[in-house]
Amino acid sequence: MIRVGIVGFGTIGKRIADAVAAQGDMHVSGVLKVTPDYEVLVAAAKGFKVYTLPDRVEKFKKAGIEPAGTIEDLIKASDVIIDASPEDVGAENKEKYYSKFDKPVIFQGGEEAEVAEVSFNALANYDEARGRRYVRVVSCNTTGITRVLTSLMLNGVGIKKARIFIARRGADPKEYKKGPINDVVPNPATVPSHHGPDVKTVLKNVDIVTMAVAVPVTIMHMHMAFLELDGAYPRDAVLEALAKTPRIFLADVGAGFQSLAQIIEYARDLGRPRGDFPEVAIFRDSVTVNGNELYLMYGVHQESIVVPENVDAVRAVLGAMPKWESIKKTDTTLKLFTEGKRYG
Amino acid sequence: MIRVGIVGFGTIGKRIADAVAAQGDMHVSGVLKVTPDYEVLVAAAKGFKVYTLPDRVEKFKKAGIEPAGTIEDLIKASDVIIDASPEDVGAENKEKYYSKFDKPVIFQGGEEAEVAEVSFNALANYDEARGRRYVRVVSCNTTGITRVLTSLMLNGVGIKKARIFIARRGADPKEYKKGPINDVVPNPATVPSHHGPDVKTVLKNVDIVTMAVAVPVTIMHMHMAFLELDGAYPRDAVLEALAKTPRIFLADVGAGFQSLAQIIEYARDLGRPRGDFPEVAIFRDSVTVNGNELYLMYGVHQESIVVPENVDAVRAVLGAMPKWESIKKTDTTLKLFTEGKRYG
Repeated sequence: MIRVGIVGFGTIGKRIADAVAAQGDMHVSGVLKVTPDYEVLVAAAKGFKVYTLPDRVEKFKKAGIEPAGTIEDLIKASDVIIDASPEDVGAENKEKYYSKFDKPVIFQGGEEAEVAEVSFNALANYDEARGRRYVRVVSCNTTGITRVLTSLMLNGVGIKKARIFIARRGADPKEYKKGPINDVVPNPATVPSHHGPDVKTVLKNVDIVTMAVAVPVTIMHMHMAFLELDGAYPRDAVLEALAKTPRIFLADVGAGFQSLAQIIEYARDLGRPRGDFPEVAIFRDSVTVNGNELYLMYGVHQESIVVPENVDAVRAVLGAMPKWESIKKTDTTLKLFTEGKRYG
Repeated sequence: MIRVGIVGFGTIGKRIADAVAAQGDMHVSGVLKVTPDYEVLVAAAKGFKVYTLPDRVEKFKKAGIEPAGTIEDLIKASDVIIDASPEDVGAENKEKYYSKFDKPVIFQGGEEAEVAEVSFNALANYDEARGRRYVRVVSCNTTGITRVLTSLMLNGVGIKKARIFIARRGADPKEYKKGPINDVVPNPATVPSHHGPDVKTVLKNVDIVTMAVAVPVTIMHMHMAFLELDGAYPRDAVLEALAKTPRIFLADVGAGFQSLAQIIEYARDLGRPRGDFPEVAIFRDSVTVNGNELYLMYGVHQESIVVPENVDAVRAVLGAMPKWESIKKTDTTLKLFTEGKRYG
């Protein structure tokens, strides 16, 4: 059993913990929390040991919680660390703590690419993570784009240019202080947004430019993608490539999928934990071929899309399982859609 | 004085009425309202005669309002009609009423292009409206795109392809029943959205594709535009073209224009009627040249952008004034930004 320590138990960390616990070949050695809030109760209810930072031990004790130890204890009790700290805190943890040990660490996309030797997406470059000390799972939007482009490329559809336009969710559901309300915010106003360059940390040679705005939505990001292909492909060939690629879901307007909200409603109806939708949700009706141009719209569930990628990153970095075997195991244990998918 | 009858006194109609009243060479012969609600009081307060449909006269009387007459009386009392009815009602009015008279009628972009002989944008094709019986001012998003493309083309920048991605406001401020709340809605899910083909009703030869989603915003639309130019132009040349074109405003993030909300706050601070912003509001920071590709983001104020276009359409259809003279007069009377603008 691979012992996985999870540093950070927020939006991403708590989901990764549940996913790791569901795998069978790995278990959660502990989670690190900085604040003794209700999420500690969540962790305790699930049987996860809760660690904290050295300077937070007193605060936890005052709140009536006895931590299992400090971050260094957690690292010692783990074979691999997944750092799901807030933006830039992972890099601080690396300098302060991880650098003292010889354990592999998986960071999240909120960190700069330089924090790690490899930026990771399971479909795109699983094998590049093997034996690395530091790996970074790219962010939600970057993961969504990388999956779509890789799906096409793995199926022989060449991409000359990707120009992708993102309506970002302004905040996660629990972030009550963040906006915007009734506004559209260039995010950033400059071009490209960071997503395009970030995709290139995984898909080195792709010609990609992205623009992004933030909108008053908490449920999902929406992408409008314009791809210039290396030739004219039939629409059916594109749809087939997308349909058989793991972690991609094709939603039909005719089946009631008229917006992002219905995608999440579907996840809730299916009994998925937290109503999560880790697949890229492509609106099939939007998939349009016009000469050598391809258009499509898809939703990216910011809270959960990177969760299966983190599970695979654990196996990839340790060389514990071949790529497609890991992806299939992750998808099966997390009850993602596997019917009609090609694993390998 | 040109007598202008305005059929429909909703979001667009009431603004056109105020704009016509401010011109000096035209006046409002009357406005037509279908419902005897608070907007009748607005019309009365401004001294506009209120007409209604024949089958609404009783309803008005019951509400204590004596209409000045029916729609046919309004047409007789006018030299030109501006129809600002809800979508598709203009075409019904054409068949039922306008076809019986020999007066020019200006429709709005909610109508199909076929309702009129010419689809109109003042910058792009003012002279094509002259002497026509039926003219259609294109919709807010189409007006925004047409202005931006025309600004470049008038200044010698050739456009090979326009690929434009729209985050549409879900509803106008007063539309309390419309959504979405916390959702992003493909609008439509199919590609292209109607905006691209609609731009071609004015700019016949442009290669344009648009995609649109609706977001929980009432204040403005946001466009993310990707243009392939016929060569590599310096960024300064592009900015200069945009800066000197009437009805285009360049907003700097450094000056505090970080989102659409600040654009509208500026309009409110300037004392503009209703806090309207009839200019296309381009985020200067977003204007990016990359080889022969140009990127930019801009806001389109759906409630007011077509207002100056309607005023110009009146003069254009009657041959009452040359193009640039009309545009300048409209901009001056409506207190739009005229400094540094080139009229002609």
